[in-house]
Amino acid sequence: MFDKKRVEALSKGKQKWVRSLQLKKNRDAEALFVVEGEKSVLEGLSVFASRLEILVSIDAFLQQIPSQFQSKTFTVTTKELEQISELKTPNKCIAVFRRPELSLPTNEFTIVLDGIQDPGNMGTILRLADWFGVKQLVCSKDTVDCYNAKVIQSSMGAIYRIPVHYLDLAAYLTNSSQQKFGAMLNGKNYKQTAYPKDAILIMGNEGKGVRPEIEALIDFPVTIPRFGEAESLNVATATAILLAEIIQ
Amino acid sequence: MFDKKRVEALSKGKQKWVRSLQLKKNRDAEALFVVEGEKSVLEGLSVFASRLEILVSIDAFLQQIPSQFQSKTFTVTTKELEQISELKTPNKCIAVFRRPELSLPTNEFTIVLDGIQDPGNMGTILRLADWFGVKQLVCSKDTVDCYNAKVIQSSMGAIYRIPVHYLDLAAYLTNSSQQKFGAMLNGKNYKQTAYPKDAILIMGNEGKGVRPEIEALIDFPVTIPRFGEAESLNVATATAILLAEIIQ
Repeated sequence: MFDKKRVEALSKGKQKWVRSLQLKKNRDAEALFVVEGEKSVLEGLSVFASRLEILVSIDAFLQQIPSQFQSKTFTVTTKELEQISELKTPNKCIAVFRRPELSLPTNEFTIVLDGIQDPGNMGTILRLADWFGVKQLVCSKDTVDCYNAKVIQSSMGAIYRIPVHYLDLAAYLTNSSQQKFGAMLNGKNYKQTAYPKDAILIMGNEGKGVRPEIEALIDFPVTIPRFGEAESLNVATATAILLAEIIQ
Repeated sequence: MFDKKRVEALSKGKQKWVRSLQLKKNRDAEALFVVEGEKSVLEGLSVFASRLEILVSIDAFLQQIPSQFQSKTFTVTTKELEQISELKTPNKCIAVFRRPELSLPTNEFTIVLDGIQDPGNMGTILRLADWFGVKQLVCSKDTVDCYNAKVIQSSMGAIYRIPVHYLDLAAYLTNSSQQKFGAMLNGKNYKQTAYPKDAILIMGNEGKGVRPEIEALIDFPVTIPRFGEAESLNVATATAILLAEIIQ
């Protein structure tokens, strides 16, 4: 059993440190990431147990934490938690994990993101990748940070399972011998296209699409036909439609 | 040409009134809705011209407003606009439109939403409907208001084109002779299903799915097969995948 009496309060210095990890440069420097919310934290304790750095909890949540994490658990008041939380809605716990070490991307099926900016879109694409069994994402360096709090929240646990590589996209694509499919407005109907098992699927920025230097590296532009009047599809929903066609 | 000198400043009373429309009960009572942001406002002026009630703009945006709307346009300072805006990111203009009158739902293909709560999901589903040429949505009465600011923002103009009916869902479905397909976790593979042109597609709440009394009215439960480890799909991405299969 979790011995509540042996759990220490989180010091002001440590509170400040957890809060400092809201900034990308700080979490990058320490190779850490922060997870908030009961469900995601408990999932992390389950699949990333050995990577837990510190677990911050309000008293009322302590009993849900497996006792093996007691030595790494510290309590805060609800008010203190609000102050170190990055999310608007109040949570019960925050966990800091060490990031997994990334090896180079493999030659499996890969989703490439070119300049995606919205954290909700990135998180939703990670969740989709996790549903469809995609093994990795490769992103341009200006794509939103996958360890952004809103990305982690909307990824619904996918952040624990899908490695996200930030690379010089043009160099990565140039050096890859995999066939490259890109979501474009003027491509071939995506349903009339054959996709090899090890395809690369390239999705562009929300407003600007795929940038010209990346577009030049696409072998097969594909398009989702439009039947109505909307100007475009949201990038996460377009990714969903393409994945459902490619992976079946 | 738009004569800037003839544009009046928006009175404090009118500012308070526009702000009051952030509350559903107030915009419902007057059958109005509020649109923010350059692109959406200009699209509304184009397709909903006769429904414009009032247009609020900062000085710098006046020149982009077609002169026919001069008598309905009022200026505010940037600070005043921030105070009456519902969005975090600053905008240049706010338009108030009268809602279109709704007739009863037709017997065409229909998306039914049972208790969708997240405005971003609702807006994204509207945008999808607009892309796929869907003519109407029917929602349970506890589904998020389609005139919520975040719904309108993420609908990207679809709110002008897609009628959204809020009805007693159980009664609507019971009285409809159309075939009813519902996204469930234990249904038939959605790709091995034939959909008539006038199908009804039912999507459930983000956390709880379709509620039991509605599930009982589904003729054909359909499921998107999972290849990875995610627990579920986001409802907007699931809608995207199903629409791309049904409408082609």
